[in-house]
Amino acid sequence: MPGTLLVIGGAESHDAGDDAILERFVSLAGGSDAQLVVIATASEAPAQREKEYVEVFHRLGVERVTPVRLESREDANGEPAVGAIERATGVFFTGGDQLRITTAVGGSKVDSALHARLSDGMVLAGTSAGAAMMSSTMILGGSIASVSTSSVQTGPGLEFLPGVLIDMHFAERGRLNRLLSAIAMFPHELGLGIDENTAILVDTDAAVFEVLGAGAVTVIDAGPARRINCPAADQPIALWGVQLHVLPAGHRFNLTERTPMKRSEEDHAD
Amino acid sequence: MPGTLLVIGGAESHDAGDDAILERFVSLAGGSDAQLVVIATASEAPAQREKEYVEVFHRLGVERVTPVRLESREDANGEPAVGAIERATGVFFTGGDQLRITTAVGGSKVDSALHARLSDGMVLAGTSAGAAMMSSTMILGGSIASVSTSSVQTGPGLEFLPGVLIDMHFAERGRLNRLLSAIAMFPHELGLGIDENTAILVDTDAAVFEVLGAGAVTVIDAGPARRINCPAADQPIALWGVQLHVLPAGHRFNLTERTPMKRSEEDHAD
Repeated sequence: MPGTLLVIGGAESHDAGDDAILERFVSLAGGSDAQLVVIATASEAPAQREKEYVEVFHRLGVERVTPVRLESREDANGEPAVGAIERATGVFFTGGDQLRITTAVGGSKVDSALHARLSDGMVLAGTSAGAAMMSSTMILGGSIASVSTSSVQTGPGLEFLPGVLIDMHFAERGRLNRLLSAIAMFPHELGLGIDENTAILVDTDAAVFEVLGAGAVTVIDAGPARRINCPAADQPIALWGVQLHVLPAGHRFNLTERTPMKRSEEDHAD
Repeated sequence: MPGTLLVIGGAESHDAGDDAILERFVSLAGGSDAQLVVIATASEAPAQREKEYVEVFHRLGVERVTPVRLESREDANGEPAVGAIERATGVFFTGGDQLRITTAVGGSKVDSALHARLSDGMVLAGTSAGAAMMSSTMILGGSIASVSTSSVQTGPGLEFLPGVLIDMHFAERGRLNRLLSAIAMFPHELGLGIDENTAILVDTDAAVFEVLGAGAVTVIDAGPARRINCPAADQPIALWGVQLHVLPAGHRFNLTERTPMKRSEEDHAD
């Protein structure tokens, strides 16, 4: 059974009756039988974030929810954390600063355990910073003011979803330019701009994702670009012939072929 | 001689030594022999805007700069305004609210005079609201939060540049979604997102534009889109296979063929 990734663009709704994304996470992780781990390492107020998610997962019918506090490399190499991951059917990374995740977790025993559990079929979810860190190359920060090599900073992520570059809060923070800047420099990566309260659910085996939630996922594919010119520093980048797709809930995308796919319910239609 | 349009994405620099866009306008309109008209109808503080532009055009060596105040339909049908347009070699529309321009000027004698002078070879420039009103369909307002039919309001512009939909302050205000929303509904129009302190210089005869200024022009072409689904109201729109180009200064674009072109200095290269 392939592992499942749930990559959320931030600010997913926690309200009862309007929490489809978190409900989907719970359901994929086993519903009331789920054993969940919440990792709020990205946050500067981890206790508060842990409390929030424990409460919402309890409300969604999961009894066993364990916050795992990873504040140091020592924590991330410690038996308690590794044991919790090994028992988990679902792990949730909260938002905050993605560098706090990679510096604490990258290359640790928890990192290895997460990859192993994902291969075993676990559900790994992350929102905002917890989403950004999922790809091989992640966006660390940047500016929306122009498309230039200085408009975006990238670095290695935790490699749960290779081949993509994920940006979050995409529409809400007007981040097209910083994603285009990154994709112009690294066109072998596919750019995924995920709106708030919106997610992609990735079947890692099939390399197909489906969009969930209220907003859309903007896919930027510079593979077919006929011209990319990346001058130094803050000089504007030229990009000719980028493919762009806007995919709302229900739409699917094949990450290998880089093409949108019909929605499941349309498989036998037209 | 074909007329020239200078369509500026707002906030063009007025600083001495950093005023390339306005300098280009002056130079195209005849340099020190130019006879310029400034129309600040879009603004709620027209006197202040007029003063600003008169000052900068004087500094750029033009003696004859006439602010033409069009506060009513009566003004826009009056002989003084029409006479000023007929004598002008260049007309500049300031920013503000594009509806103030269309409601005062649309269908008036000034409107006709502007079109006639443009055909005769005049330079017509506009920034921000003065840029938005140039196309046949203009964006009136909208939201950046999603791609949906309710994310953008459009209406008829003054039709100086048919076939395009212009959005301005594009990168700075993160307006991809509202431009995509408009283009999804009206894919026969080409979307042009113009950054601040950035402009397109349009040769209306050849239907070719060149990019000027500090930022870039983002071209959204939904012509080749394989799928566009526009559900009602605020439901997210689906768009598959939109072409996107990012064109910084020096890049040219053929509006008829909807293709980027090499820069002038590259014509005899590769």
